[in-house]
Amino acid sequence: MKIKEFANIAAKYKVIFFDAFGVIKNYRGLIPGIAQTFQFLKERNIDFYILTNDASRSPEQLAQAFKKQGIKEITTDKIISSGMLAREYLRYKVKKGTVAYLGTENSAHYIEALGLKTLPISSLDLNNSHDVSALVLLDDEGFDWNHDINKVINLIRMRNIPVIVANTDEAYPVSEDQIAIAIGGIADMMEDIIDKKFIRFGKPDAQMFVFAYEHVTRKSFVSKDEILMVGDTLYTDIIGGNKFGLDTVLVLTGNTLPTQAKLLIQSTGIVPDFVCESAVIR
Amino acid sequence: MKIKEFANIAAKYKVIFFDAFGVIKNYRGLIPGIAQTFQFLKERNIDFYILTNDASRSPEQLAQAFKKQGIKEITTDKIISSGMLAREYLRYKVKKGTVAYLGTENSAHYIEALGLKTLPISSLDLNNSHDVSALVLLDDEGFDWNHDINKVINLIRMRNIPVIVANTDEAYPVSEDQIAIAIGGIADMMEDIIDKKFIRFGKPDAQMFVFAYEHVTRKSFVSKDEILMVGDTLYTDIIGGNKFGLDTVLVLTGNTLPTQAKLLIQSTGIVPDFVCESAVIR
Amino acid sequence: MKIKEFANIAAKYKVIFFDAFGVIKNYRGLIPGIAQTFQFLKERNIDFYILTNDASRSPEQLAQAFKKQGIKEITTDKIISSGMLAREYLRYKVKKGTVAYLGTENSAHYIEALGLKTLPISSLDLNNSHDVSALVLLDDEGFDWNHDINKVINLIRMRNIPVIVANTDEAYPVSEDQIAIAIGGIADMMEDIIDKKFIRFGKPDAQMFVFAYEHVTRKSFVSKDEILMVGDTLYTDIIGGNKFGLDTVLVLTGNTLPTQAKLLIQSTGIVPDFVCESAVIR
Amino acid sequence: MKIKEFANIAAKYKVIFFDAFGVIKNYRGLIPGIAQTFQFLKERNIDFYILTNDASRSPEQLAQAFKKQGIKEITTDKIISSGMLAREYLRYKVKKGTVAYLGTENSAHYIEALGLKTLPISSLDLNNSHDVSALVLLDDEGFDWNHDINKVINLIRMRNIPVIVANTDEAYPVSEDQIAIAIGGIADMMEDIIDKKFIRFGKPDAQMFVFAYEHVTRKSFVSKDEILMVGDTLYTDIIGGNKFGLDTVLVLTGNTLPTQAKLLIQSTGIVPDFVCESAVIR
Repeated sequence: MKIKEFANIAAKYKVIFFDAFGVIKNYRGLIPGIAQTFQFLKERNIDFYILTNDASRSPEQLAQAFKKQGIKEITTDKIISSGMLAREYLRYKVKKGTVAYLGTENSAHYIEALGLKTLPISSLDLNNSHDVSALVLLDDEGFDWNHDINKVINLIRMRNIPVIVANTDEAYPVSEDQIAIAIGGIADMMEDIIDKKFIRFGKPDAQMFVFAYEHVTRKSFVSKDEILMVGDTLYTDIIGGNKFGLDTVLVLTGNTLPTQAKLLIQSTGIVPDFVCESAVIR
Repeated sequence: MKIKEFANIAAKYKVIFFDAFGVIKNYRGLIPGIAQTFQFLKERNIDFYILTNDASRSPEQLAQAFKKQGIKEITTDKIISSGMLAREYLRYKVKKGTVAYLGTENSAHYIEALGLKTLPISSLDLNNSHDVSALVLLDDEGFDWNHDINKVINLIRMRNIPVIVANTDEAYPVSEDQIAIAIGGIADMMEDIIDKKFIRFGKPDAQMFVFAYEHVTRKSFVSKDEILMVGDTLYTDIIGGNKFGLDTVLVLTGNTLPTQAKLLIQSTGIVPDFVCESAVIR
Repeated sequence: MKIKEFANIAAKYKVIFFDAFGVIKNYRGLIPGIAQTFQFLKERNIDFYILTNDASRSPEQLAQAFKKQGIKEITTDKIISSGMLAREYLRYKVKKGTVAYLGTENSAHYIEALGLKTLPISSLDLNNSHDVSALVLLDDEGFDWNHDINKVINLIRMRNIPVIVANTDEAYPVSEDQIAIAIGGIADMMEDIIDKKFIRFGKPDAQMFVFAYEHVTRKSFVSKDEILMVGDTLYTDIIGGNKFGLDTVLVLTGNTLPTQAKLLIQSTGIVPDFVCESAVIR
Repeated sequence: MKIKEFANIAAKYKVIFFDAFGVIKNYRGLIPGIAQTFQFLKERNIDFYILTNDASRSPEQLAQAFKKQGIKEITTDKIISSGMLAREYLRYKVKKGTVAYLGTENSAHYIEALGLKTLPISSLDLNNSHDVSALVLLDDEGFDWNHDINKVINLIRMRNIPVIVANTDEAYPVSEDQIAIAIGGIADMMEDIIDKKFIRFGKPDAQMFVFAYEHVTRKSFVSKDEILMVGDTLYTDIIGGNKFGLDTVLVLTGNTLPTQAKLLIQSTGIVPDFVCESAVIR
C-alpha cells in the first residue's frame, strides 16, 4: 500500500467530493491545515462538494460552522447532506398529515422547510396518532431513549407509515477513544425488532452521489472520470464512490487508522484508488 | 391445523416444561384458569418445570410472585431461568474481578449469589475499568438508556472481556397492543455496532433445555419422549423444544395470535406437534 | 386495500417504468393482454421504460424477444437492465486486465461491449490469475455450480479485485409453483463465506432508477411526480420506486399473490400508492 | 498474548475435548507428532473425546481412518460428531416416512442406522413427495449442486417438513491456500432464500458439548472445571467451549494463523484461556 501526497492527486480532477467527519473535521474541530486545501482548490479552479451523513443540522448551519472555524469557501450550496435526501423523499411522497420525528428540534427544520407539520415523538399521543403520515429518524439527541424509542416501536406497529432514516451511520467518534451510537444504529435495532423495512438515506447509497453529481452537472457537464471522492471510511465513502464510478481516496485522519488501513482493505475487499495520510495540502 | 384440548395431550407425559410469559401469565396477571392446570398435574403425578428467559428477578422472587397470584405449586426449585444459565457461566469462567452489569439492582442478585463483586454501569468509571472482568446484560430497566448504553459500547471497545446476555428476547408485550424492547434487543444492537461476539443464554438455545433436563433426571431417568414443551412462541419455545427432541405444544394465549398461527407455522417452517387454545385445564 | 383499474392510473402520468418479469411476462410468456397496454401508452403519448434485473441477455436480445412475442413498442432503447449498470461500473473503474465472469457466454456481451478481455471462470487457471482485474457475476446458468462456485471463492480470497453482481434477485419463478436460485442468491452465499463486500447492481438500488430517469430527462425535463413505477415485488420495485420519489403500483400477476398482498404490505411496511390486478389495459 | 506449551496445560485436566480438523489432522493428513499426544494422555490416564462437525462419515469410519494413520487410541466410542446429534433428533422427532438427504450415500448411514427409509434428493420426484417426512443436509459432495440444490429449495417450499443441517461449518480447507464450501454454507443460502428456519447441529451449539459431557459423566462425575476444549477456530470450538463453561485452548495449526491470532481474539471478543502453537506433545 503506497501512501501518496494528496496535492498530487487532487490536482488532476475537475471536481472533488469530500466527506466531512474524519476528513475535514473531527471531534476536536478542523483537521489542522485543512483550510489550505480549499484555497488550493480555489486557486486551481477545482470545484468541490461536501457529502455528509449529518442530518442534525441544516446546510446553512453546517456552512456557518465551517465559516466560524475558518473555512469560508464551504458555503451552503456546497453541502449535500443525507437530511436533504430525506427532505426530497418527503417532498415527493408525503404531501399531507403530520410528520413525527426523533431528534432535536433543530434537526426538524429539514421537514419544516417543506411546510409539513412536525411532531417530536415525545409529544405524540399513541392513542391519537391517526394524523401521523410519516416518521423521520434524524438525530440521536433531543429525546429520552428509553421512553421515546419504545414509543416509536409501537407507533410503527400500529400505523403502516413510511419510516425514513436520515443518517445511515451506526456510530460516530466523540473523543480519541470513544464513540457514540448514531441514529442509524438505533434505526437498525428498531427495524430488526419490528421486521418492517425502513427507507435509508446517506452514503454509501447511490442516491447521495447522484444528488451531488446533479449539482455538479447543473453548471456544465463533467464526466465521472473527472470527479474524486475523498473519505475516511471504507464502508460508506469508498465503496459508495467506487460503485458510482468515481475515483476514490482513503485518508487516514478518521475512522480508518494508519495501522489498520492495509489489513482492512484486504479483508473487506473495498479498494480505494489511492491512500493519503490526510486531505491536507501544505 | 387441528386445535386440540390441552388436558388430553398433557395427560400422556411424565414431565411438562412450560414457558411462563404468554402461557401461564401475561401483562395482566395469570391466564384465567391456569391455576387448575397445576392441580391437574399434581393429581396425576406429572412433574413440571417453568423455563423462562426472565433474568430480571431471582427464581425465589419469581416463585413468590406465582404464589401471591394463587399458584403455590410453582416453587423455587421448579424454575429454570436464563439468569441461572448466565450465573453458571460466571461460576465456571469468571472467578475474579468485578462484574459490571446493565439492569436493576435486583437483577444483579444472580451475580452476587456467586460472591462476585458487582458494579452497575452507571457507577463505572470508564477511565478506571481495569478491574472489570465481565459484563452481564440482565434487564432493560434500572439504567439511563442513552448514557449507559453508550458507556457499555465504549467499555467493550476498551476491554476484551466476555459479554453475557442473560435474556435473549428482543421484546415483550406490556399491554394488549404495545410492546417494549427487552435487553436482548439492546444487546443485538450493541453487538452489531461493536462487531464482537456476545454470549447469549435463553431459549431457543439447547443449554436451557439441557439445564432443565438435568433437573428432571436428577430424580430418576426420564426419556425425552416423555417430556412435553408448552410455549407461545415459535422462535424460542417450539423450535428449541423440537431441536432438543421434545414433543411441543403451541398455545395461542401469547405471542402467536389465533388468526396468525397457521400462516406462521407454514411460513417459518417451525412446526409444533400440537396446537392448543391455551394450557388451561378446566 | 382497494384494487384499482390500471388504465385509470396510467392515464395520469407522463412516463411509466415497468418491471419485466411478473408484470409484462412470466415463465409462460407474455401476460395475456399486456400488448394492448403498450398501444394505449402510444396512443396517449405516454413514454415508458422497462427496468429489469436481468443481466443474462443484452438489451438488444431482450427487445427482440418482446418483438417476437408481439410487443414491437419495446425497442432496445426502452430497456434499462442491471447488466447495463454493471457495464457502466466497468467502464469507469476497470480499464485494463481480464474480467472473469460467472454466467453464459451470452451474458458476457455486457463486458465485451467495452473492449475488455473476458474469461469464463471455467477456463480460469487459479495459479495464473494475476491478469484478472475484476469478477462479474452475471447469470446462474452456463457453469458447473460445484466446481466453479468454489473456484470463484478461492479467486476472491487470493486476489483483492472488485466483485460485481449484475442481478440482485435471489430467485426467480420457473413454473407455477417452482423457483430457481438466481445469481444474486449465489452471490449472497459467497459474500457470507468470504466476508468481503461485493458491488451489487439492480432494483431496489437507487442507481437503477437514476439511470432510467436520466434516459427520460435527456429528451425533456419530467418531474418525479409525473413518473409511475409498476412492479410485482414489494422488496425491489415498490420500495425502490418509493425511495426514489416515484408513485408506485403493485400488480398481482407475479411474485405477490392476490391472497397475500394485503398481509405483505402490512407486515413489511412497504406501501405502494396503488394496487392493481395487472398492468393489462383492455 | 503468551504462547504456552500444550503439555503443561493438558496435564492439569481430567478430560480433554479435541476438535479434529485443524487440531489432529488437516488436508495433508495427521498433524506431525500428534500421535504422541494420545500416548501422553493414556500414560497419565487423561480421558478424551473428539468433537467434530463432520457428518460425511460414520464414527466407525472416522475411527478407522485415525487408526490407519497411526492413532489407535481414537476408537469409535471416542468420537462425537454433529451427525450423531442429527441422528438423535431424527430418533425422537421423525418416526415415520422417508428421510430425503443431500450428501453422499455414505453419509446417509446416520439416518439408516435408525431404520428410517432414505432417499437421495437426486432420486426424489417432486410431484410425488408426500411420503417425505424430513430433509437432512449431510455433505457437500455426492450430488449435482445446480440441479439438486434447486430441487431442495422447491421441496421445502411445497412441504412443511423439518430441515436438519448436520454440519454447521460454512467452508473447510482443501489445500494450503484453498477452501471449499461446506454443506453448512449451502444451508445458509437455502435458508436465506426460503426464509424458513432450519435445525442446525454442530459446534458452537451447546448440544454438541452436552452430548460429549454426557458421555464423560456416564462413567463417573467430572466437573466442567476439569475439562479442557482444544480447537483451532474461535467461532466454533472456543466460543462454544467457553459458553459451556470449559477452559479453552486455541491452537495455531488450522483456521487461525499464528500471525492473525492476537488480532482476531481482540476484534471478535472471543478469548481462549490459553493459546498454544499446536496440540502436539513431544
